[in-house]
Amino acid sequence: MGVSQSGHGNLHRLCRAIPALDDGAATAARNRQANLTKPPGSLGRLEDISIRLAGICGDPRPRIHHKVAFTLAGDHGVVAEGVSAFPQSVSVQMVANFLAGGAAVNVLSRHVGARNVVADIGLAGDVPGDKAGLRDLRVARGTANMARGPAMSPAQMLQAVQAGAALVDQEAAKGLDLAATGEMGIGNTTPATAILCAMSRIAPEQVTGPGTGLDEAGVAHKARVIRRALALNRPDASDGWDVLMKVGGLEIAGLVGVILGCAARRVPCVVDGFISTSAAVIAAKVAPRSGDFIFAGHRSKEPGHAHMLDLLGLEPILALDMRLGEGTGAVLALSVVEAAARILDEMATFTDAGVDSAL
Amino acid sequence: MGVSQSGHGNLHRLCRAIPALDDGAATAARNRQANLTKPPGSLGRLEDISIRLAGICGDPRPRIHHKVAFTLAGDHGVVAEGVSAFPQSVSVQMVANFLAGGAAVNVLSRHVGARNVVADIGLAGDVPGDKAGLRDLRVARGTANMARGPAMSPAQMLQAVQAGAALVDQEAAKGLDLAATGEMGIGNTTPATAILCAMSRIAPEQVTGPGTGLDEAGVAHKARVIRRALALNRPDASDGWDVLMKVGGLEIAGLVGVILGCAARRVPCVVDGFISTSAAVIAAKVAPRSGDFIFAGHRSKEPGHAHMLDLLGLEPILALDMRLGEGTGAVLALSVVEAAARILDEMATFTDAGVDSAL
Repeated sequence: MGVSQSGHGNLHRLCRAIPALDDGAATAARNRQANLTKPPGSLGRLEDISIRLAGICGDPRPRIHHKVAFTLAGDHGVVAEGVSAFPQSVSVQMVANFLAGGAAVNVLSRHVGARNVVADIGLAGDVPGDKAGLRDLRVARGTANMARGPAMSPAQMLQAVQAGAALVDQEAAKGLDLAATGEMGIGNTTPATAILCAMSRIAPEQVTGPGTGLDEAGVAHKARVIRRALALNRPDASDGWDVLMKVGGLEIAGLVGVILGCAARRVPCVVDGFISTSAAVIAAKVAPRSGDFIFAGHRSKEPGHAHMLDLLGLEPILALDMRLGEGTGAVLALSVVEAAARILDEMATFTDAGVDSAL
Repeated sequence: MGVSQSGHGNLHRLCRAIPALDDGAATAARNRQANLTKPPGSLGRLEDISIRLAGICGDPRPRIHHKVAFTLAGDHGVVAEGVSAFPQSVSVQMVANFLAGGAAVNVLSRHVGARNVVADIGLAGDVPGDKAGLRDLRVARGTANMARGPAMSPAQMLQAVQAGAALVDQEAAKGLDLAATGEMGIGNTTPATAILCAMSRIAPEQVTGPGTGLDEAGVAHKARVIRRALALNRPDASDGWDVLMKVGGLEIAGLVGVILGCAARRVPCVVDGFISTSAAVIAAKVAPRSGDFIFAGHRSKEPGHAHMLDLLGLEPILALDMRLGEGTGAVLALSVVEAAARILDEMATFTDAGVDSAL
């Protein structure tokens, strides 16, 4: 691919910084779970989550004090092809809504006690109203139309990935024990679907979905646009960076940076639905170890999402038929992940509590 | 059945006190959901939950300030037949663990901000240690062995149901906007399975599960014990009270009272797994409207649970392979139900936020 030598070097460094899971901490957590006052295994996936958390954090009893939801916003040149039910103006309007605290991701972040970090990494328009609180990471005014050429230049992709990783560094300085990913970008189910098709060789017609609400004819048209973009750009499935650059998006590239940045710091990262998971698919391709640091927050209604989870070998935590994005499913799942950590840390053992174990 | 005329009168009064859902409030909530800043339907089950909450509470924007988890403890004469992997002594030991704050339900209640109310409604032994904080509702020192006769007398069942309903009244006086049910009682998957079989005519061999951890031979033995109890007691499937008295348990009867008491007060009630749902099956039989006020917190690993949810027509909120009881699955689900209420109440509308709607 066309990323310059120095750019390539920076991305390699980011990927190489990701450690292995800490097996010792995971084993200690597994042993502790077996001695907590409950029948072995009776807390099901909460036990599994807590053991993986221990391995991620390198701590047999990880404690979650600081939770952060990263919501990255970018626009998509491909909306010129008529692939979304909503106009592109909604991207900046919704970012203004995030900053005012009126969107779903704000409500859920308040509910679970997470800080919500909102960044403009590539919006086409200007965010109306008070922009205090918006992180300006803008790489471009939206991607180019992938139905007519690559969505990004190599330099743009590199900048977006590095901006995402740098955002993690900034938040880590304030405290970051558990992350969630989210996004806003009218049209972004189109690049996410294109990434899935490029990486899995599933045909666009099989997995293209309604996004925010296309009808049947709209879905068929969107699938044709994706097919055209893939045929024109010929992304190399063996090179995640090439796929991301040609048919991805700036917010998706930023989320790849967030995911890699979290993994490098041993911060567990809960990915949201279809768009965020497309970033996870890229991250796991360019840095396979990063997949060990990811939890799937929920199973989206968007039809391709189950295929992405299969690629990653992840079982979603929640399945509530959500398909909003913004980070909503991941943020709600933060509460379950935190519950798992607290079970591991705070429950009494059979010995502590003087409870008889099984007959 | 053998409940005395005055006893029957009290139970009838409890059932008759349950109102219908408030269709006006539910409709107002549905209309508000359609105007919130998201594609219609994109929050999936959170939207459905919020609309049902509105109908339950009789309020188009219900707010959850006070959450209470009711954990009722009772013992079971049928443990004499060898139906549990843990000794009966564990019931009182685990109640002591609840009071000390070391059990899973304590950790999860703290996590979601719920008060945990623990009541002895029929423990066989004495709870060791400091009993401040334990509600003494004890009806008997455990049920009789249902493999040799009815588990309870009519008077015992009546007392247990009324004690559960009275507990709701007491907590409502302190503030109660959302309830969760839970229980502790070594051996109580046996009466819960018997209730399912009696109400559904499914054979015990088809649905009997391992409970806290029986092996295959243990499960087969437990199914034979349940078959014997049903053949001996001949519970009348058309009369929920008769089923409850003959093959239920004191904590299950108490939970029937909690469920009916919540419904009478328009308090949404999230039921936990297999044991709690057996109480919901009884409640929905004796007072069909009560089923409208119940949410299923999670799908238990115990094999009969899915059948119970089918009987009730409920879709569980969580599916995390949990099978602990105590109220753990319901308490974790409280957080999702509260999230749904906050979405409905706190999100901006398209007009509020100046966001364009669909093309």
